[in-house]
Amino acid sequence: MSRIVVALGGNALQADPKDVSAMGQYNCTRLTARPIVKLMMQGHQVIVTHGNGPQVGQILSIYEAAAKSGEFDAMPLPECGSMSQGYIGYHLQQAISDEMARNGVNKSVATVITQVVVDMDDPAFKNPSKPIGSFYTEEQARRLAAERGYVMKEDAGRGYRRMVPSPRPLRIVEDAIIRTLIEAGHVVISCGGGGVPVVQEKGGLKGVAAVIDKDLATEKLAELVDADVLMTLTTVEKVSINYKKPGQRDLDFMTVSECGEFIGEGQFAPGSMLPKIQAAVKFAKSRPGRRVIITSLGKAEEAMEGRAGTLITL
Amino acid sequence: MSRIVVALGGNALQADPKDVSAMGQYNCTRLTARPIVKLMMQGHQVIVTHGNGPQVGQILSIYEAAAKSGEFDAMPLPECGSMSQGYIGYHLQQAISDEMARNGVNKSVATVITQVVVDMDDPAFKNPSKPIGSFYTEEQARRLAAERGYVMKEDAGRGYRRMVPSPRPLRIVEDAIIRTLIEAGHVVISCGGGGVPVVQEKGGLKGVAAVIDKDLATEKLAELVDADVLMTLTTVEKVSINYKKPGQRDLDFMTVSECGEFIGEGQFAPGSMLPKIQAAVKFAKSRPGRRVIITSLGKAEEAMEGRAGTLITL
Repeated sequence: MSRIVVALGGNALQADPKDVSAMGQYNCTRLTARPIVKLMMQGHQVIVTHGNGPQVGQILSIYEAAAKSGEFDAMPLPECGSMSQGYIGYHLQQAISDEMARNGVNKSVATVITQVVVDMDDPAFKNPSKPIGSFYTEEQARRLAAERGYVMKEDAGRGYRRMVPSPRPLRIVEDAIIRTLIEAGHVVISCGGGGVPVVQEKGGLKGVAAVIDKDLATEKLAELVDADVLMTLTTVEKVSINYKKPGQRDLDFMTVSECGEFIGEGQFAPGSMLPKIQAAVKFAKSRPGRRVIITSLGKAEEAMEGRAGTLITL
Repeated sequence: MSRIVVALGGNALQADPKDVSAMGQYNCTRLTARPIVKLMMQGHQVIVTHGNGPQVGQILSIYEAAAKSGEFDAMPLPECGSMSQGYIGYHLQQAISDEMARNGVNKSVATVITQVVVDMDDPAFKNPSKPIGSFYTEEQARRLAAERGYVMKEDAGRGYRRMVPSPRPLRIVEDAIIRTLIEAGHVVISCGGGGVPVVQEKGGLKGVAAVIDKDLATEKLAELVDADVLMTLTTVEKVSINYKKPGQRDLDFMTVSECGEFIGEGQFAPGSMLPKIQAAVKFAKSRPGRRVIITSLGKAEEAMEGRAGTLITL
């Protein structure tokens, strides 16, 4: 029996990237629940994290549109993040719970609204690199920059978008909550979207407009709960080098030092495979015996048996 | 040491009913955290529930406005409820946690996204009585009724609003989660807005467009966690008969049978004090020794010492 922290990518919540509707997400989570429950039926303990890019972007955009009409205020990014955690968690907990019931697995599922501490001195705050929310015209972008202090950047000819920093996760505020639930044998959904980023100020915690990488937050969680396996479920079955180029090679296995070499060669796309590999390296190095598996949603079960996916170890 | 389930009313989240902004809610929850932590410092264990009327109404309205523009789909009510739980829980857990830290109370706070089972045969589904979301013109109302099957009703000359059923809460899905956290000594925020209403179908749980009364859901929770005290914090310091009429009498104490008499006389306003008294009667009757206190936010501490509020017992 292994303790597995499973990080769900965007395709676990949206079958079609263009479909951001609640019904689309609902239907997709029904399918996502299957491999998660299969891992449980193999005897493993599963802890779930997930991304929230399109969802938090939608909530932010909708509030921005409403603010434009003057009827409502815009909703700050940390609050949008907490909403997305509630929304996605609700669908996932219901789907996992139903799938467990169908398979005779008798457990309860909890969505824990999670805050993750970051450092205002993190260099990411000097270089906001993560696009978020709607596209704007140059004029709108200039006004948002002036009125709200947003950093706006042109995005590949498609218009201007707000950029926010992506600082490193330092501490999961709800750590004791998550550990209590896991020790009691419950299924926990946490660190949604990388967690709501907060900074420690004199008066307490304060939400900041930033986005924590989901894979790095998941790695933090996996160390915290003393997981045996960090499993990243994404769209591809294996990690590849020369991905979508001549000589593409799909890897069954990588050592931490090979990961370092491939990162050095620029083999992994920033914001996509790169943070997954970075998280993998950090987790595999954190204690001998810890394993990372990167594979597709449908191959989770086989990958745990060594018959699919890419395994990364020290 | 008592175990207290504290139900927070709208005024615990909004100082000014017209201010539905995130900043307004943030500032208000900072104040709300004080009496909650004072109860802890008296040695009690506190479990928190809260309303979500204005918040879920705002989320629903904003998505409805976005759907009108054709850019996004409307968000179903259960999903809006889960968002509001995440949003309000985030503010409350941060505020309570900071207030505890300032007072040397070393505990963790969890927001648990909560589903509450209702019965489709509940008579409430035949008579939707709870207004929700924006106001519409007669023509818009007619279209929404035709297109989405909404029940629309004229609301006191202010326009048309969607009406949803308010069924009785039967079961809290996350009961084991909540009990585990409480037994470990954590502070739990749950049943936000009465919980997301779900019905048990063959394939599993399914969210329904309804609103569960927060006070009745809180009562269910209080029984579930074997609470000693159900404390309802609202705008008034005491329950009154002949409220705002000649001969108003503020009550220090009521028995369950007196509650029944006053309910019979129509002393308590439906949707306001009435569900609080109904919840009080149910809880006080559920086991001898169980107490209900209804008081204002600022008087919680004194009320636990018998120096304020209205006490209701068997």
